[in-house]
Amino acid sequence: MEKKYTASAKISDVSISGGLFGRVSGLVKEQVLPYQWDILNDTATNAVPDHSIENFSVAEGNDEGYPSHCIANFRIAAKEQEGDFYGMVFQDSDLAKWLEAVAYRLMSEPDAELEKTVDETIDLIGRAQQDDGYLNTYFTIREPENRFTNLCECHEMYCAGHMMEAAVAYYKATGKDKLLKIMCRMADLIDQNFGPEENKRHGYPGHEEIELALVKMYEVTGENRYLKLAKYFIDERGKKPYYFDIEFEKRNRASHFSYLYPPYGMYSNGPKYEQYHLPIREQKTFEGHSVRCMYMASGAVDVARLTEDEELMNACRGLYENMVQRRMYLTGGIGSTPKAEMFTSDYDLPNDMVYGETCASVGMMFFTKRLLQAEQKGDYADTMERALLNTCLAGMSLDGKSFFYVNPLEVDPVISRENPDRAHVLPVRPAWFGCACCPPNLSRMITSLPEYMYTICGNEAYVNLYLSNQAKLTLENMEIQLDVKTEYPYEGEISFEVKTEGEYGICLRIPSWSSRKWSVAINGKQVAGAGRPDNTYILKDGFLHLIRTWKPGDHILLELDFEPKRIYANPRVSKDVGRVAIQCGPLVYCLEEVDNGKGLQRIYLPRNAKLELVRRPDKLEGINEIHASGFRLKDFKEEDVLYMADTQWEYEPVKLVWIPYYAWANRGENEMTVWIHEK
Amino acid sequence: MEKKYTASAKISDVSISGGLFGRVSGLVKEQVLPYQWDILNDTATNAVPDHSIENFSVAEGNDEGYPSHCIANFRIAAKEQEGDFYGMVFQDSDLAKWLEAVAYRLMSEPDAELEKTVDETIDLIGRAQQDDGYLNTYFTIREPENRFTNLCECHEMYCAGHMMEAAVAYYKATGKDKLLKIMCRMADLIDQNFGPEENKRHGYPGHEEIELALVKMYEVTGENRYLKLAKYFIDERGKKPYYFDIEFEKRNRASHFSYLYPPYGMYSNGPKYEQYHLPIREQKTFEGHSVRCMYMASGAVDVARLTEDEELMNACRGLYENMVQRRMYLTGGIGSTPKAEMFTSDYDLPNDMVYGETCASVGMMFFTKRLLQAEQKGDYADTMERALLNTCLAGMSLDGKSFFYVNPLEVDPVISRENPDRAHVLPVRPAWFGCACCPPNLSRMITSLPEYMYTICGNEAYVNLYLSNQAKLTLENMEIQLDVKTEYPYEGEISFEVKTEGEYGICLRIPSWSSRKWSVAINGKQVAGAGRPDNTYILKDGFLHLIRTWKPGDHILLELDFEPKRIYANPRVSKDVGRVAIQCGPLVYCLEEVDNGKGLQRIYLPRNAKLELVRRPDKLEGINEIHASGFRLKDFKEEDVLYMADTQWEYEPVKLVWIPYYAWANRGENEMTVWIHEK
Repeated sequence: MEKKYTASAKISDVSISGGLFGRVSGLVKEQVLPYQWDILNDTATNAVPDHSIENFSVAEGNDEGYPSHCIANFRIAAKEQEGDFYGMVFQDSDLAKWLEAVAYRLMSEPDAELEKTVDETIDLIGRAQQDDGYLNTYFTIREPENRFTNLCECHEMYCAGHMMEAAVAYYKATGKDKLLKIMCRMADLIDQNFGPEENKRHGYPGHEEIELALVKMYEVTGENRYLKLAKYFIDERGKKPYYFDIEFEKRNRASHFSYLYPPYGMYSNGPKYEQYHLPIREQKTFEGHSVRCMYMASGAVDVARLTEDEELMNACRGLYENMVQRRMYLTGGIGSTPKAEMFTSDYDLPNDMVYGETCASVGMMFFTKRLLQAEQKGDYADTMERALLNTCLAGMSLDGKSFFYVNPLEVDPVISRENPDRAHVLPVRPAWFGCACCPPNLSRMITSLPEYMYTICGNEAYVNLYLSNQAKLTLENMEIQLDVKTEYPYEGEISFEVKTEGEYGICLRIPSWSSRKWSVAINGKQVAGAGRPDNTYILKDGFLHLIRTWKPGDHILLELDFEPKRIYANPRVSKDVGRVAIQCGPLVYCLEEVDNGKGLQRIYLPRNAKLELVRRPDKLEGINEIHASGFRLKDFKEEDVLYMADTQWEYEPVKLVWIPYYAWANRGENEMTVWIHEK
Repeated sequence: MEKKYTASAKISDVSISGGLFGRVSGLVKEQVLPYQWDILNDTATNAVPDHSIENFSVAEGNDEGYPSHCIANFRIAAKEQEGDFYGMVFQDSDLAKWLEAVAYRLMSEPDAELEKTVDETIDLIGRAQQDDGYLNTYFTIREPENRFTNLCECHEMYCAGHMMEAAVAYYKATGKDKLLKIMCRMADLIDQNFGPEENKRHGYPGHEEIELALVKMYEVTGENRYLKLAKYFIDERGKKPYYFDIEFEKRNRASHFSYLYPPYGMYSNGPKYEQYHLPIREQKTFEGHSVRCMYMASGAVDVARLTEDEELMNACRGLYENMVQRRMYLTGGIGSTPKAEMFTSDYDLPNDMVYGETCASVGMMFFTKRLLQAEQKGDYADTMERALLNTCLAGMSLDGKSFFYVNPLEVDPVISRENPDRAHVLPVRPAWFGCACCPPNLSRMITSLPEYMYTICGNEAYVNLYLSNQAKLTLENMEIQLDVKTEYPYEGEISFEVKTEGEYGICLRIPSWSSRKWSVAINGKQVAGAGRPDNTYILKDGFLHLIRTWKPGDHILLELDFEPKRIYANPRVSKDVGRVAIQCGPLVYCLEEVDNGKGLQRIYLPRNAKLELVRRPDKLEGINEIHASGFRLKDFKEEDVLYMADTQWEYEPVKLVWIPYYAWANRGENEMTVWIHEK
C-alpha cells in the first residue's frame, strides 16, 4: 500500500440541495440538533420511555431515557452545581457527539448564536477538566481514585475520543482551538499513562473510538505521538495475557455493569465482545459488539493507511469481506442478537431477532469511508450506501422527532409486546433513550455527509454517493467545482455539470446492483455503458474513471438500472430460504400492514408477478412505491384447529404495496417485513 | 358437573410389558433412579456442566449442575453434619420427586433393599423437621427467621407439596405412614398460617404444586381441611391487592433470585409470570411460566371435581382449549420463550427459540390426567399422548443417561454455540442440571404411567394410552382384567384380551388423527369403524364405548390409521407458513443431519411425494422411519455473494429420512428440524 494524496470533500465546500438528503439535512439542523440540546440540558418535554435493552438502566433509576443530566454532570464536575453524577458511564459522549455535529453544521452554515452556545459549553468543559488534563465527569464526580482502572467497562477513552472528534471538528469549523487544547491535554495524559514503555500501563480501551480520534488529532495538530498512540492501541489489543484479565483482578473483580451483564458486567461477556480475543491482525471475522467492531476497524484502516501497514490493511480487508459476504443484513444492518448487541456466526441473520443497531450502521459508514480513502473500490461505497439509505435513515422518523436503536427486518407488534425475546424490536420509534448513542451519531454523520460523498485521490474525484449538491473539491493539484442534480434514490438518472477547466478525473461509482445496465453520456454522447466493448473510459473496481480535459459546461449523464428487482439471500441464510425481498436502485423495500393488511408472513409473491414502480411524491415525504399482484394464505376453515393433516390451502389475491424500508413505522404501530415468501 | 365414581388404574395392578414403554420403564428403574440417588448423595461421577438458563446459578457457584448436596442439606438441617445449604432454594424437591418415583416403582415391584434406603431417608427427613412441623432445609439452615415471608420466590409450599406427593405415594406403596405423618404436620402448620381467617396470612404459593398435593393428602387421609386449604389457594390467587405486592414491601423488597431476574427476582417478572394477574376463574389464557400453569390447572381441576365447582371447571376447560388451539407446539411442548420459560401470545410458536421444557409437558400430562378424571373426552388423552410420546420422551436419551430441559423443534449446533439467544437450545443432552427439576419429574411420571393409561368412571374403563400391558382395573362395582398387546406407537393395531366375565364398558380412545380411518372388531367381527352408519357401539367425545356383557377370552382388535401424514399448522402460526411436518400415528417425526446431510433448512418436500413407512427394529432401539424423495436448494454458484438479484435456483434430489422426534440427538451433535419447506 503506497501512501498517496487522499482526502474527503470538505463539509464547507459541499452544499446539499433538495431531494431526500436536502430534507434529512434540514431535519437534523432544524429539529434534531435543537431537540438534542434540550435533552442534554434536561429541558426537553416530549421524551418518552424506551424499551431497549439498555433500559436495564432501570436498575439505576433511569427508566425513562431522561433526564439526560449530561450538562449537569459537567457543571457538577466543575464544582458549579451540587449533586451527583447521573446517567450512563459514557454520558459525556452524548455532548461530544452533539458538539461534533454542530461543528459540521457550522461548517456548512455559520450561526453566531449557536457558536456562542458552543463556546460557552466549551468553557464549561474546560472548567470540568482536572488540573492534570483528565476529563470525564463520571470518574471526576464518583470515583476519582479509580481512573483508568476499568478500561474494559468504563468508556473513559471512548468519551475522550468523542470529545477529540468534536474538538477537531470545531477547530476546523471555526479556527477556535480551545476545545482542541483541552483535548490535547487529555490525549497527553493518556499518552503518559499508556504505551509500550515499562512504566506505562499496557492497556487499550474496552470500547474502541479513541484510535480513530487520535488519528484526527494527529492530522490536525501534526503531533506524531497521537498517531503512535493510536497504533499502540491497535497493536496491543488481543495480546496475551489479556490486559482486561489483569485489570479485573487488580480491581478485585469490581464491576460497573453487573446489573446489565451479571455477574461481572462487560467483562463477563468474554474477550470476543470487545474484540480482544485475538490481535487485530489475526482476526478473520468480526466478533462481539458490532458498534465496537466498526470503530475498531475504522481506526485500524486509518493507522494502516498512514503507516503504510499492508498487513494491518489486509486484516481490515478480510474483516470487511467477512461482514459483507456473511454477516450483514440486506438493509446494511449488523448484529444478529440483542444479547450484548453482537455479531453471531456466518449466515446467522434472523430477521425477527436482529439487533441491527443504528450506531452500528453509522459505524459501517465510518469504516467504509476510511476504506475508500485507503483504496477506491466501489464495493466499499456500495456498502456505505446500503447502510446509509436503509438502516441509518430508518433510525430516524420522517419528522426527526423519534429514533430507532434497533432496526428489524420483521416486526409483529403483538409478539414484540408479549414475547420478551422480541422486546428489543420496537414497532414505533421512541423519542429518546436511556442509552442515547444512536440519535447523535446519526446527527454527526448526516451533518458531515460531504465527507462520505466524495473521496479525492491524487487528481481524481471519486463520487461515492449520488445526491443533488454543488461541490468544490480540492484535488492534489487543483480545485474543481461540480454541480450535481438528481432525484436519486427515486430515479436512476444523475446529471453532473462540470464547472472547472483542466485535466482531472471524475470517477463515477457504478453500483454492483446496476452492473448489468448502466450508461454514461458526456455532452449527450454515450461514452460508456454496460456490455459495451468500446468504452472510452476504464471501469475499474466499480468506478468509471472519466479522466480527461474538462471544460466548464461539460455535462455528464449517468443512467443507472432502475428496474425493481427481486433479491435473494445466499441459501446458507436459513431464515431467508424460500423468501424474496425487493430492491429498487439502492433502496431496500418493505411491506407494512397499513398498506397490505394483517398477516404479512402469510403473503406470497409469485415468481413471475410484474413489479411496478409508482411515484408517490405525496406519500411519506415523497417516495416510490412498488406494486405487484400477490396472494395471501387464507385461514383454516376450522378456526380453532392448530394443526391439521393434509390441508387444502386456499389463497386470496392481494395487491402488494412496498415502501422504502427507511420510511417504515411512520404511520403508527403495525406489522412490517422485508422478506416475504415466494411461490 | 356431577360427582361420580372416578379413579385411575392402580400402579400395582398394571404390568407394562415390552415395547417402547417396557424399555423406557426399565431404563427409569435400572438406570435413572439409581443414578439420581447417586446425584442426590453427591456420589455420581458422570455429571457434566449444563448450559440451560438456570445455569445462571453460576452466580451461586453451582456452574456444573452438581454436587446436588440435597441429602447433605437434610443432614445439615438435622444438625447431623456441619456445613451450609447449597443448591437452588427448591433443592429439597429433587429428593421428594425421587422418593415419589421410587414409591411408584415399589408398587409395581417390591425391593426390600431399596425400601430400606427409603425408610432411612424418611428417618432423616423426620430429623430435619422442626418441632412445629416446619420442613424446608433452605430456610431451616439459612433463614429460619424468614419462613413464609417470600412466597413469591422461595418455593416453600412447592417443596412441601412435592414431599406430600411422595408421602402419599409411599404410604400407598408400603402402608408405612411415617412420611405421611411428617407431611401432615407440615400441612397442618401451613393450614395454621394460611387461610381466610383474619389471623392468618392471605397468601398463596409462587409456584403452584401444593394445591394438587393437598388434594392427594385429602384423598388418602380424609382430612377435609386439606381440600379446603387447596381450594383456598386456588381461590385466593389473583385477588387484589396482590399478596405478592404486600409481601414484597413487608420484607423491604428483599429478593432471592435477583441474580437471575434483576432487580427483584421473580417478583420483577410481574403478575402473569406466576398467574396471579387475575383470579383463576377469570383467566382465559395460560400466561407466564408454563410449568406453573400446568400445576395450577391440575390443582384447580382436582378442586373443581371434588367440590363440584362448575365455574372453576369451566375456567380450566377454557385454559385447556386456549393452550391446545393456540399455544402448543406440534410436539406437545409449551413455552415459547426461554425468558422465564413462559407462554407468550396466541400463535407465537417459534421453532428455534422455543423453550418447551420437559417439566411443562410432564405437567401437561398431570393436567390432562385430571381433566380425564373430571370428564372423559378423548381430546384430553390425545393431548396427553402428544406430550408423552414426543416432548416427554425426548427429555431423556435412549440410554437414560442424559436429559433435555429444553425441547426445540429446530436446532443448528453452530448457532446454538455462537448466538446467545439460542444458548438454551442444546444440540445434545447434558447429564444433569443445576436446576434438576426435569429428570426426576420424568421418572415419577414414567413409574406411575398406569395412572395415565386408564381412567375408570363408574363401570367403564377408559383406555387413554395404548401399550402392551396386563391390567387389573377396579370399576365401581367389580374388578376386571385386560391383556393388551401391541407394537403401538410403531403399528396401528392394538389387541385386547378380556379376562373377566360381566357387564361393563371398555371405552377405546379413537385419536383425532385417526378419526377418518379406524375400525374395531370383537372376536373377529367388525363392530365399529370410521364412516360406518351401522355402528353397534357409541362413539362419544373421542371414545368408542364398548358396553356389553363380556366373556373371558373375548378379543377386541382396534385398528388405527397408520399412514404417515403431512401436518400443517394454522396459518396464523407465522413461523410454520409454507412448511410441513410429518406425523405417523401419534409420533411426530423429525429430520436429523446424520440421516439427511447438512442444511436441513434448505430441504423441500414436494407436495405429492410419497411417504414410505420403513420398519427399523435395528435402529435407535427400534423405530419406524419415514422415507420420501425431496430436494435441497443448492448453493449460489458465487460462494462469496450474500445477496443476489433474480437468481436461478438449482436443486439437488435428496432421499429424506425422518425418525421419531423423541429419538433425536442420540447420535452426536447435529442439525435437527421438525418443520421443513413444502413445494
